[in-house]
Amino acid sequence: MTQTADDVEAVLARANFAADGLLPAIIQQWDTKDVLMLGYMNSEALRRTLTEGRVTFWSRSRQEFWRKGDTSGHAQYVRGAALDCDDDTLLVQVEQIGAACHTGAHACFDVDPLDPVIGGVGEPA
Amino acid sequence: MTQTADDVEAVLARANFAADGLLPAIIQQWDTKDVLMLGYMNSEALRRTLTEGRVTFWSRSRQEFWRKGDTSGHAQYVRGAALDCDDDTLLVQVEQIGAACHTGAHACFDVDPLDPVIGGVGEPA
Repeated sequence: MTQTADDVEAVLARANFAADGLLPAIIQQWDTKDVLMLGYMNSEALRRTLTEGRVTFWSRSRQEFWRKGDTSGHAQYVRGAALDCDDDTLLVQVEQIGAACHTGAHACFDVDPLDPVIGGVGEPA
Repeated sequence: MTQTADDVEAVLARANFAADGLLPAIIQQWDTKDVLMLGYMNSEALRRTLTEGRVTFWSRSRQEFWRKGDTSGHAQYVRGAALDCDDDTLLVQVEQIGAACHTGAHACFDVDPLDPVIGGVGEPA
């Protein structure tokens, strides 16, 4: 059962938006669990994401709502969502159509992996 | 081969920190691909994360460096990292020791899953 309108209002009231009115939203492919991208939502974008079955962001650069896929066709269909323990970050599990990244890459983190020092249990730290 | 000091400087120069000097960092368990939490890094926290084998954040609430696990024992050992396509978000794959969340939950997103409307390909949108 999907949540009622009252439930959505409760989530919006609980969500802890930053001073700029935005909340980071991590987008994860629901089955492979790949992290695809991170976008930002204001209260209305969060409402639309929770109630419309598709992910809507607030574009910081364009200062407008941005429903993923309306231009590119690369929609993100909602499969699940959770706020974190202090309600200031959203995780959305999606079915990603096509590439998540505007570069054409599967995920925005595929473009240029770094090469950090690898840590391990028991190593000096 | 891990990156050289010059490589790290190049990454720090390329990273696109927000006006507050911080970059969101998504923390993902490297093998299960669970998204564990999101934290923030300033330039020095990013440097330490890339070079020390353990994840260091900048705590916005305490205004201090916060090496995950120093208090809790729940360290995050670095297994991989990537900046996204516009260099303003970091993804870190880690080996998480114990619980990632201060609540004792495995992940910060496990506490209270939401119940959004589920979308699907071919549905009216």
